[in-house]
Amino acid sequence: VPFSKKSEDLTHEALIKRAVSLVTNSANTYLSQTTLALVDTLTEYTKALYTLISIQKRYVGLIGKMNPNEEDAIWQLVIRSRVEVNEKQEDCKRFESNWMNAVNLSERAAEAAYVAGADQASVFARSHLQMSQTQVEEARQLSLKAERMLAEVQADEIRRTAQQAQTSESAAGLEEEIPDAYLRED
Amino acid sequence: VPFSKKSEDLTHEALIKRAVSLVTNSANTYLSQTTLALVDTLTEYTKALYTLISIQKRYVGLIGKMNPNEEDAIWQLVIRSRVEVNEKQEDCKRFESNWMNAVNLSERAAEAAYVAGADQASVFARSHLQMSQTQVEEARQLSLKAERMLAEVQADEIRRTAQQAQTSESAAGLEEEIPDAYLRED
Repeated sequence: VPFSKKSEDLTHEALIKRAVSLVTNSANTYLSQTTLALVDTLTEYTKALYTLISIQKRYVGLIGKMNPNEEDAIWQLVIRSRVEVNEKQEDCKRFESNWMNAVNLSERAAEAAYVAGADQASVFARSHLQMSQTQVEEARQLSLKAERMLAEVQADEIRRTAQQAQTSESAAGLEEEIPDAYLRED
Repeated sequence: VPFSKKSEDLTHEALIKRAVSLVTNSANTYLSQTTLALVDTLTEYTKALYTLISIQKRYVGLIGKMNPNEEDAIWQLVIRSRVEVNEKQEDCKRFESNWMNAVNLSERAAEAAYVAGADQASVFARSHLQMSQTQVEEARQLSLKAERMLAEVQADEIRRTAQQAQTSESAAGLEEEIPDAYLRED
């Protein structure tokens, strides 16, 4: 080939192709790590939600049947469980931002690989991206389902507490004190 | 530490930090390769411009002193040299798009590293970016300088050719034919 002074492996094109393939590889690894972290944390968040749901359900079942000590004990459980839910939610947000960065980097790396002629690396990066997005979406759907369930239990609890307050008032004319920790902001 | 079931090196945070550091490393390599390719090609483009400039200068110096054969010979040189300049310019465009992708990827990788707490990798990627941008800017300035010089020589040539045409006409009443390849579009 005229004018070509470099061997095939040492052309700028070949070196760029190799370098961009390494970027897509490391971006894939980074995407895997952040996907794993986010899916794990979403799963822990979902578990924490179900724990809170079961405690709140127990509480709802016992409304009007507890003495103040029993009520206080179960409220301590609810509070601790809510703290756990909030912590897991914070973890999710943190890993979510890492995961979004990884998705973004993988997309750009796949595009750069395509421009540089490293088609295989580009295709592999894209299929890896799709897999990651599917996994995160599934974990997210499970946590959304748990969130909806918790909202129902909490609505139920409010209804039951209001009924109980009416019953107590009409029965004994006493105002039953609703624990502070139980007052919801919404 | 309570609630921590994983050793320090196997937390999601540590694994993500390591993975994103690998991305910045490979992005640095990719940036180096594309920088080298672009700077090399810009340099070759600049050299090609200077070759064309020197041929055109020689031509300008000989206007009115050549016979048709000599004129044709030097025009063949000019044409070949222009083709070379255009080819090098195309190479520059190709490597420029690769380089832009690499800059973009490095910026994103540096930001992702920062978000993941891999501060050192982030700082290193940013300083590498700056170095690359300086190198490309320098090479680009040199090619711009050569482009301006070529424009001057071409303007000079047009002036001289016009003068020569007048002289020839007034001297002999003959119309000297201007070679087609020499006619500029601007």
